[in-house]
Amino acid sequence: MTLSGKLIENSVMIHENGVEELHRTSFYGRPRDNALELSLPESAFLIYVDKIKVELDGIELDFRQFFMKASSLVKNFELFYIVYKDLRERGYFIQPAAMGFRVYPRGGHPGKTPAQFFVFVTSERMPLALSDLKKHIDTVDNLKKRLVLAIVDEESDITFYEAKRTYPSGTCKIDLNISLSTTSFLEDRCMIWDSSTSNELHNGRFFGKPMDEGLLQLSLVESSYLMNKGIIEIENRHNEKLDFTKFSGIASRIESDFMTKYKVYEALRNRGLIPKTGFKFGTHFRVYRSFEKVSDIKHSDFLVHAIEHDHIFSLLQLSRAVRLANSVRKEMIYASAGSEVDFFVIGRMRL
Amino acid sequence: MTLSGKLIENSVMIHENGVEELHRTSFYGRPRDNALELSLPESAFLIYVDKIKVELDGIELDFRQFFMKASSLVKNFELFYIVYKDLRERGYFIQPAAMGFRVYPRGGHPGKTPAQFFVFVTSERMPLALSDLKKHIDTVDNLKKRLVLAIVDEESDITFYEAKRTYPSGTCKIDLNISLSTTSFLEDRCMIWDSSTSNELHNGRFFGKPMDEGLLQLSLVESSYLMNKGIIEIENRHNEKLDFTKFSGIASRIESDFMTKYKVYEALRNRGLIPKTGFKFGTHFRVYRSFEKVSDIKHSDFLVHAIEHDHIFSLLQLSRAVRLANSVRKEMIYASAGSEVDFFVIGRMRL
Repeated sequence: MTLSGKLIENSVMIHENGVEELHRTSFYGRPRDNALELSLPESAFLIYVDKIKVELDGIELDFRQFFMKASSLVKNFELFYIVYKDLRERGYFIQPAAMGFRVYPRGGHPGKTPAQFFVFVTSERMPLALSDLKKHIDTVDNLKKRLVLAIVDEESDITFYEAKRTYPSGTCKIDLNISLSTTSFLEDRCMIWDSSTSNELHNGRFFGKPMDEGLLQLSLVESSYLMNKGIIEIENRHNEKLDFTKFSGIASRIESDFMTKYKVYEALRNRGLIPKTGFKFGTHFRVYRSFEKVSDIKHSDFLVHAIEHDHIFSLLQLSRAVRLANSVRKEMIYASAGSEVDFFVIGRMRL
Repeated sequence: MTLSGKLIENSVMIHENGVEELHRTSFYGRPRDNALELSLPESAFLIYVDKIKVELDGIELDFRQFFMKASSLVKNFELFYIVYKDLRERGYFIQPAAMGFRVYPRGGHPGKTPAQFFVFVTSERMPLALSDLKKHIDTVDNLKKRLVLAIVDEESDITFYEAKRTYPSGTCKIDLNISLSTTSFLEDRCMIWDSSTSNELHNGRFFGKPMDEGLLQLSLVESSYLMNKGIIEIENRHNEKLDFTKFSGIASRIESDFMTKYKVYEALRNRGLIPKTGFKFGTHFRVYRSFEKVSDIKHSDFLVHAIEHDHIFSLLQLSRAVRLANSVRKEMIYASAGSEVDFFVIGRMRL
């Protein structure tokens, strides 16, 4: 039986019998006094499957007319429709939510179980501010749900990502008991010339990269960290000692995001983790949780990319980073460097 | 026997007997009248392996002193040394070149064979302008050599990439004989409502993505291309016809790099290729060379990212893109949209 409804503002209102027909067992819409209220994506879907007809000002709208109308009423209606239809056709029960949909777990439905996911719907073309993502994550976390990003690409395919906070930690302590060593700051890296310090730092805590026998090259972030820990002093080519302010000033001219990277590096090391460059994976760091001997180190545990607290994600870049991390079976973690460093893990999921 | 040399400007000059000792069979340096001239990376390496001693103003420099001096004389000396040492220790014969090194093929050496590779040495931190890369590619191409980028990461590891021009082509012709169809421009994609046109475009030439039965969603670049080919007309929600100028103006507000993407899309289609969104791979397009039936289409052949002619590569991004492409066994191609569209393939290589 095809039910009749009216398009009123941004909803379709169906007569009371819709509650029994559409809501009681199929969980479309929300019962209101003597009526069933349907959202526009729900309505378009129900028109498509011939369950309802919708009138506007006494005239019935066909699918195309309804779709065009809805698209002019609700921003991103097409995206909502694509995601709604996909989830519904795959057996999920769904209710509208501010930023997308609440989705019930398989086997669950409104009235029986709480929703499990909040699905935030967006398009590959829309930039996503970290501040917005954080807000979504924290809202959803407070409700004890899981946040899903449904990203609709140019071809109307959907990729689902789960985003959540994470609190990585490791077991590597910086309790080195070695005498202060002098390090030379060359073009864009530092060199330790003393072979016993080189050995302690590399074999003991996996700092730097041994070059020739007894020499250790340190990256800019490693050098800063060890200087701040009082383990090395840094001199320039004219044998002038550099303090952190001077060194980080020069380092920031070499790589403009040095301070962001440094804050994240420091936070990771302070958490007992071992960050090394992630260049081969296109991220700032690959990170190891534990460490016995350099020769035993195999695969890193996850990848970390340092971003500023006001970072705006390009979803194309996000897709690339997550896909690459997953292809090497690692988690992709974004670390935002504000007054504190927060960690967010973003991974593809099958919903 | 340890030979003695003098640091003079940016070279080390070794007495004539060096020609026999170092050049004749090991191909270090370049013979000059009565002497052998060594570059600074060669010299540092030869000091390290105890083959030479070097004096400056009558005083012998040890490895550390020589290294610091060389690093102050030559920009990026550390990088050159790292790459020189790596290649030399792996058995390659090498001569200096303007932007890095000329490298001889395995089994070959100066005087016997021409150099095979030009190795351009850089650091992960240095941005690389497309215009410079193009210049290197064309110079090396004229000499019938191969261009290698040796990128030294923060940890002094080297990743080698080969970069060259490529001329992709496919077999899909746009010879559709269908009547002009009207398309609705919605929020950020277009919709074809006519089912026979939808079917022709999708099943015949792999345009768009079928939504519900008989409807086809087209991306912004697909819509523009079909409009320019006279296959569709585009109307906005108020049934006003849009020409290319208007449509591309709106599209450019939706995605700022629309025109760059469009130029590349058009060039690919005109070459008989089928570009579809590469979102899942973090690039603009995945591209198919040939096409029989939509249902038979399996894996795309390569990935294409559209860039402007004045693009500056971040090497971290380049590393991520190439690694991801390789992990799915596809070539990574950058397409620069200037007055013409040029294609460059960049892939990791083992040197």
